[in-house]
Amino acid sequence: MQAVNPDWEGRVRSDFARQGAMRLIGAEIAAAEPGLCRLRAPFREDLSQHHGYFHAGITSALADTAGGFAGYSLMPAGGEVLTTEFKINLVAPAKGSALLATGRVVKPGRTLTVCELRVEAETGGGPVLVAVGLQTLICLMPRS
Amino acid sequence: MQAVNPDWEGRVRSDFARQGAMRLIGAEIAAAEPGLCRLRAPFREDLSQHHGYFHAGITSALADTAGGFAGYSLMPAGGEVLTTEFKINLVAPAKGSALLATGRVVKPGRTLTVCELRVEAETGGGPVLVAVGLQTLICLMPRS
Amino acid sequence: MQAVNPDWEGRVRSDFARQGAMRLIGAEIAAAEPGLCRLRAPFREDLSQHHGYFHAGITSALADTAGGFAGYSLMPAGGEVLTTEFKINLVAPAKGSALLATGRVVKPGRTLTVCELRVEAETGGGPVLVAVGLQTLICLMPRS
Amino acid sequence: MQAVNPDWEGRVRSDFARQGAMRLIGAEIAAAEPGLCRLRAPFREDLSQHHGYFHAGITSALADTAGGFAGYSLMPAGGEVLTTEFKINLVAPAKGSALLATGRVVKPGRTLTVCELRVEAETGGGPVLVAVGLQTLICLMPRS
Repeated sequence: MQAVNPDWEGRVRSDFARQGAMRLIGAEIAAAEPGLCRLRAPFREDLSQHHGYFHAGITSALADTAGGFAGYSLMPAGGEVLTTEFKINLVAPAKGSALLATGRVVKPGRTLTVCELRVEAETGGGPVLVAVGLQTLICLMPRS
Repeated sequence: MQAVNPDWEGRVRSDFARQGAMRLIGAEIAAAEPGLCRLRAPFREDLSQHHGYFHAGITSALADTAGGFAGYSLMPAGGEVLTTEFKINLVAPAKGSALLATGRVVKPGRTLTVCELRVEAETGGGPVLVAVGLQTLICLMPRS
Repeated sequence: MQAVNPDWEGRVRSDFARQGAMRLIGAEIAAAEPGLCRLRAPFREDLSQHHGYFHAGITSALADTAGGFAGYSLMPAGGEVLTTEFKINLVAPAKGSALLATGRVVKPGRTLTVCELRVEAETGGGPVLVAVGLQTLICLMPRS
Repeated sequence: MQAVNPDWEGRVRSDFARQGAMRLIGAEIAAAEPGLCRLRAPFREDLSQHHGYFHAGITSALADTAGGFAGYSLMPAGGEVLTTEFKINLVAPAKGSALLATGRVVKPGRTLTVCELRVEAETGGGPVLVAVGLQTLICLMPRS
């Protein structure tokens, strides 16, 4: 296993800041470590589906992004990350004052990285698990 | 197979209109038939990831929603639709002037419905396949 | 949450014993608890793909079955379990003297149950993670 | 797009013949084209789950293998194929005299290839769709 890029956190934070879609959703980084990223997005009406909960697509976008940055934190300088695929099970209505989406690397790799995804809703009664997922990322290196 | 609800199109269009997240993304219904729904969203900077393409989370949100309404169109009056899970493969960068996401029912059911998802980018050179997916929906009937 | 069926273990063991496919593969129950099932299958040439490792289809069959019985252990008497879908990431070659596949319920439900799946290979250097997955099960009750 | 390896069919057939797991299941190649592979396996008691239908794990193993050879048929000489992940929806009980599993490449690539999977049961009333899936393959080239 190679050493973690010393600038991993700067890369995660600056690339996150450049994601228009995350600004649109109002997401912020709640935690970042090598191999882990947690995003938080407060509820807004314009993130809802027609029952007034978070839209499954928003839940998924947060989960995918959290996983993407979890993987990115372990990639070498110059590497770019892309999601090749993900799968998500929406196990409970995403009903709460905010969503917390966590991506965690379960298998880092030179080309492919696999992450576990987990989304919780913040509610008056504590966090409630609303989604679990799995994701594959690819690391693209610039052609030399 | 039961008959299609005669008001399927009214239900699809009114529930779509109530989805805050779809307004936020700027998506519109491009086609609707019993068992099929196609959504279209023009590119905007605030739908992008940090390379300037459509964010995978936006691509996924559109695909999930197209599938949800494809399934909903076949559900009986009073039934509500929820995504229980979906999986998406992002097969090419989502680069273009708009995304077209199509959901198509491959197996309708009283409780569970399975849809195929497909997303294309509109480009100067014609449509380009950017994602394929599979989705499971559940139909919830009100307790009598 | 309803109480666990007091005969959960008897049901798991007798239904497992009736699975022709698990006998064919040579799998046995290595651990069973309410909400968890672990299966073990020793390596044989006829479980291999063309490089001599466990075939991905065998790895998947074990993972799916472990999850199915994990969910079944929480279902009420008379309920039957079916897999509606699963997804598996094969994160390392399945190379070892045996496979250990574990299914664990992350979200039980009256109709749908979601399980996490994990497969390890037994090797001289200890267990190696070879696959992770997610699975949805449905509980079918007899029509009254 | 590079030309198809002229020996694609020889490679598919000889590597298939070396898969112990496919002999164990009794599967044969029913059709092979560049980018497509169809496998057929007759029903046997020892391929069943406890209701007497094909075991979901067997259905999945066939689907995964059909997709793997569909992708392999497009890979260059010397390339080896591995499944990195797949997802399958079991949409009807796998009840019939045989299973027909088809893998079809939807997106070939130098590193990653994505396939659609489809499994039908042969029944007295004609073929019945029992499963649909998506799969990612990786092509590994020998280190030079």
